[in-house]
Amino acid sequence: MDVNLIYLAIMTGLLAIIGAVTIAIWLAGRSSGPKKIQEISKEIQKGAVTFLNKEYEVLIIFVVVIMMILMIGETHYGKIEQYSWIAFGMGALLSALAGNIGMRVATMANGKTTYAAERSLMHGLQTAFSSGAIMGLTVSGLGLLGVATMFLLVGESHIEALYAFGFGASSIALFARLGGGIYTKAADVGADLVGKIEAGIPEDDPRNPAGIADNVGDNVGDVAGMGADLFESYVDAIIAAMALGAAMAVVKARQPFTPEDDDMLVRLMGDVSITGDQAMILPLLLTSVGILSSIVGILAVYGLKGGKSPRTALLSGTVVGAIMMGLLSIPVITMYIGEFVSELYIALMAGLLAGMAIGFSTDYFTSEERSPTKHIAKSATTGAGTVIISGFAVGLLSTAIPVVVICIAILISFEVAGLYGIALAAMGMLSTLGVTLAIDTYGPVADNAQGIAEMAGRGKVARQRTEELDAVGNTTAAIGKGFAIGSAALAALALYSTFQSVSGIDHIDLAEANVTVGLFLGALMPFIFSAMAMNSVGKAAMSIVDEVRRQFREIPGLMEGKAKPDTERCVAIATKSSLREMVLPTIIVIVMPLAIGYWSLEALGGFLAGSLVSGLLLAIFMSNAGGAWDNAKKYVEAGNLGGKGSDAHKAAVVGDTVGDPLKDTAGPSLNILIKLMSIVALVFLPFFV
Amino acid sequence: MDVNLIYLAIMTGLLAIIGAVTIAIWLAGRSSGPKKIQEISKEIQKGAVTFLNKEYEVLIIFVVVIMMILMIGETHYGKIEQYSWIAFGMGALLSALAGNIGMRVATMANGKTTYAAERSLMHGLQTAFSSGAIMGLTVSGLGLLGVATMFLLVGESHIEALYAFGFGASSIALFARLGGGIYTKAADVGADLVGKIEAGIPEDDPRNPAGIADNVGDNVGDVAGMGADLFESYVDAIIAAMALGAAMAVVKARQPFTPEDDDMLVRLMGDVSITGDQAMILPLLLTSVGILSSIVGILAVYGLKGGKSPRTALLSGTVVGAIMMGLLSIPVITMYIGEFVSELYIALMAGLLAGMAIGFSTDYFTSEERSPTKHIAKSATTGAGTVIISGFAVGLLSTAIPVVVICIAILISFEVAGLYGIALAAMGMLSTLGVTLAIDTYGPVADNAQGIAEMAGRGKVARQRTEELDAVGNTTAAIGKGFAIGSAALAALALYSTFQSVSGIDHIDLAEANVTVGLFLGALMPFIFSAMAMNSVGKAAMSIVDEVRRQFREIPGLMEGKAKPDTERCVAIATKSSLREMVLPTIIVIVMPLAIGYWSLEALGGFLAGSLVSGLLLAIFMSNAGGAWDNAKKYVEAGNLGGKGSDAHKAAVVGDTVGDPLKDTAGPSLNILIKLMSIVALVFLPFFV
Repeated sequence: MDVNLIYLAIMTGLLAIIGAVTIAIWLAGRSSGPKKIQEISKEIQKGAVTFLNKEYEVLIIFVVVIMMILMIGETHYGKIEQYSWIAFGMGALLSALAGNIGMRVATMANGKTTYAAERSLMHGLQTAFSSGAIMGLTVSGLGLLGVATMFLLVGESHIEALYAFGFGASSIALFARLGGGIYTKAADVGADLVGKIEAGIPEDDPRNPAGIADNVGDNVGDVAGMGADLFESYVDAIIAAMALGAAMAVVKARQPFTPEDDDMLVRLMGDVSITGDQAMILPLLLTSVGILSSIVGILAVYGLKGGKSPRTALLSGTVVGAIMMGLLSIPVITMYIGEFVSELYIALMAGLLAGMAIGFSTDYFTSEERSPTKHIAKSATTGAGTVIISGFAVGLLSTAIPVVVICIAILISFEVAGLYGIALAAMGMLSTLGVTLAIDTYGPVADNAQGIAEMAGRGKVARQRTEELDAVGNTTAAIGKGFAIGSAALAALALYSTFQSVSGIDHIDLAEANVTVGLFLGALMPFIFSAMAMNSVGKAAMSIVDEVRRQFREIPGLMEGKAKPDTERCVAIATKSSLREMVLPTIIVIVMPLAIGYWSLEALGGFLAGSLVSGLLLAIFMSNAGGAWDNAKKYVEAGNLGGKGSDAHKAAVVGDTVGDPLKDTAGPSLNILIKLMSIVALVFLPFFV
Repeated sequence: MDVNLIYLAIMTGLLAIIGAVTIAIWLAGRSSGPKKIQEISKEIQKGAVTFLNKEYEVLIIFVVVIMMILMIGETHYGKIEQYSWIAFGMGALLSALAGNIGMRVATMANGKTTYAAERSLMHGLQTAFSSGAIMGLTVSGLGLLGVATMFLLVGESHIEALYAFGFGASSIALFARLGGGIYTKAADVGADLVGKIEAGIPEDDPRNPAGIADNVGDNVGDVAGMGADLFESYVDAIIAAMALGAAMAVVKARQPFTPEDDDMLVRLMGDVSITGDQAMILPLLLTSVGILSSIVGILAVYGLKGGKSPRTALLSGTVVGAIMMGLLSIPVITMYIGEFVSELYIALMAGLLAGMAIGFSTDYFTSEERSPTKHIAKSATTGAGTVIISGFAVGLLSTAIPVVVICIAILISFEVAGLYGIALAAMGMLSTLGVTLAIDTYGPVADNAQGIAEMAGRGKVARQRTEELDAVGNTTAAIGKGFAIGSAALAALALYSTFQSVSGIDHIDLAEANVTVGLFLGALMPFIFSAMAMNSVGKAAMSIVDEVRRQFREIPGLMEGKAKPDTERCVAIATKSSLREMVLPTIIVIVMPLAIGYWSLEALGGFLAGSLVSGLLLAIFMSNAGGAWDNAKKYVEAGNLGGKGSDAHKAAVVGDTVGDPLKDTAGPSLNILIKLMSIVALVFLPFFV
């Protein structure tokens, strides 16, 4: 195996991080604006750090316990792959690091964005996008760096230890997505219910004790959560491809080589004929190409600043990144393999194009400029009931294109390059993560910048411009959510392919009762998990509501603006209750695949397939219905159908309220659920065989 | 084969019908009350007949087209089993007949119930229950009669023709559930939106032009729809068991008998050793036992009239029926096989008990006396948004028990008696349909009786008593819905087992890309189908709204009560638009499995499994969320949390509005979807092999 190429991947990972640092230095040099902006920005940052620190207190225990379990499983039972516990720790550490950096940068950039927008729209755009670019490059850089380094450390013979790296990343992602999702909606509901409705003060009013917690929540959920989610998908796809390469090497080396081995080889790789080493290294090289393409995409956004609308500038980044990936991977495949293996390229591109198609489908179903959302807004004129029904139907219908697109990607990639092809498709979809995540992260920063403009009482220009930036962010955020779900599904499918090939069971036959039962139980998991997440939001929100009411009642002069609210306490309560609420779902998600696997390995195969398919459908439904309700409300607020304060607006607000926990808590957590259960199955597989 | 036993089954079927006729004669002799009640009752009956006649106009074309396709498939391509077209026609005819009789009886009984309730609560109960008993006995009698007669006609060698009998029943069920579901909710929304909200007149006011259509709708959806749905499940379960018996006979007769044949035999029957003839006849005998048990259960309801509450009287019918089935099937199995084959009995009982467990789970999650619904009602105090969120979460969570119960039933029945065991479990769940359907049908009749008491302006006693009867009906209706979903799932699973064994494919391997793609696409179907159904309700409702508005505007003196509304026109419009709206979903449901099967038989296996699992989960979710919202509203209306007219009540009404199309249109239609796609796959299977 050519170790130099692994070093090359590590260097590319470092290059991405250097790029991130460069942008961070530039960003740090931007003015933080007047004192009032700085104060609020600091408070949000402090709240975010408070959340992260509290989260780490719980996380560290969780991580240490799992590491010990893995270590005991290795040394005592000989069932867990060597180095797994280190890999787990490393995966958790890097994911947490990426999230931490992303959060700090985003909360630093929001005030700067407000101030920059006062000077010009493009300055604001650049500032917000810079924090996104830092996040995108950090996540993809640390992802590649981590996987490549771990691979160097454990070597080909212990490649199964890489699953634990993914497991570590998964755990952090669950904390960020589920815990963060509960936090953000609890704070939001708490702030709105008492502040806006009971006390009658406007949104983002500085007198609202939960206002800061609400803004912290945007960063916790949309920045740290999205980052950790995609970090996990990113490394899972690479790991799955490498593991399948290793599995192929084992089959190829068999002596004597039976016809069954040949069948297995076709299932693993289709008609592609490359060596096992090549199959293991190629994912690292293609990921490196993806990082370079992302950097070009990011530069394109900066370059296009003159004369273009913010929306065009951002979307062109995605397109340029994808085109670069399409172009650069041709010579890289050709040079490395010695000839252009079109099958590998086709699989990669199938995923890349599928990701874009899912993004555009999401945009269609949730954008306020398209008919589905306009239809929901129109149904607001006949009351809240019809808003919910029409949004519900739009959400259900919106599952069609993503599922069909994923099916096409599966068929093409499997046809050309077997299970390895499916993993390549997942990698293809995620390859340009550096730039796609940059654009995703832009959204919450722009959202916060708008909130700060409000809270700091900035002038009309600042408000108008930050609102415009925020509107663009809504579109890109919706696309990002669709992309996150699609890539989670493909990454989980890649892990599932790995599970199929390394579990040693010849088939997961739906004609067997235990597989069918596994399928039913697996499909049930996302339903129960979502129900728990939604109930948790309700409970956590109630503790915020109580606290905000208490402050309005007990702090003299608060309503008159003479005294300051105790925002820190709200942050602390939201943090504590969100972390408490995620304990039970986490245990269920980890224990269920273990219990099913212990009972029957075939049932586990059905279980994972069931959770994948129902998780994907529910996640798309929830995310798109939520996005469409959100934008239908915005559409009415923009002055249509009676505008703000009309009956239609009140009805549309109900839709938005319903959509919030669906699109920001339950839906995104399902991305983690489907990957986490697959990776748990892989890590603990030797116990079941 | 002992043909006498088939005659015995036919006799039992006839016995059930004689029982139904006896009760009908008794019911016809009951007073129809004063003229006003008779008038309204007649109008509802006329509306129901109008719907049925219009439906038949479309149906007859549909049925003839399919019969021709089957005939061409048989004679021209030699791919469709002989006699299939006759069986299809017979299945459609008997299902339509059962629905027609049930509707006519129910609409005849509602006015009589109102009048009987004025005399005493128990008289009212008996009258309403009698119409249910007629429905229950007719459906189960015609079901057994039809299957047994067809079997006698086509013989063992053409047993596959029975699938077409199920297909015929399925088609009618789809028209009744989907078309009926769209009709009932469109009429309901139309009546409420213009009548209650715009014109400000109370519910069931005689001035409302859509009032009759609304009452017709209850019968169309809840009587004809429920009846056709369960008729289908009932015959599907019997047919699946008989077909598996025939498959076993073929395997047993193989010369030479290979180890693979032995494996196949174990998969088909477990360790049960009975002859193929016995396996084919036993389902008919056990169904006969079920009919006798149901008759005893029905008599128990009449017998318990003194001193017991209506709820206890009704529920004891189910319990007595189940106990009788448990007792009587022991000697029947023993006498027929020659020894007591406990495996067969265990499989049967697993289904019977699972059905009851699902019923009780449904009751728990939707009854206004239990905490989930009370919790939803409480969340109404913080607005419509929280009502929807908490109901959504309750609905998601409520999927757990039914799915786990079905899994246990699958595992037990498969363990003891293979795929045949699963079919027996489905039969066990449905065996006492005579009495369970009687209790289900009681609900809508009591509901109508209450509406008539209102419209006819009867005294306080009549209103109070019919309301009490209606409240009991709500509980039993919820239990009935859960039972309908559970039995549809088990019946579909039995058909799926048949598909597995007769398709000749050795496995439906999730490790193959086309099976995975099939699974994804299958799971997608219920989502798209539900979305279409919900949109259809919206469109059909709008045409009613326009018509009601027109009548209020154009008929002079209508609001003052001086002129009569043109209720017939509303019925005609609701009928026409509901039938128009169901064309596209019907085509999709029939064409999709054909397309997938044409592409790949393995993919079809995945497709059916996917649609079954996601259809089951969505159906339970929709049905229970809808039921819980409905009862949460009723809980508030009973004077809790501020009672009628409070803000909490307004919020609870939104929940009810949202729940309606879920629980009465989309959810129940999914029962048909999962069965219909399986049966289409079976009928057209020879084209794909």
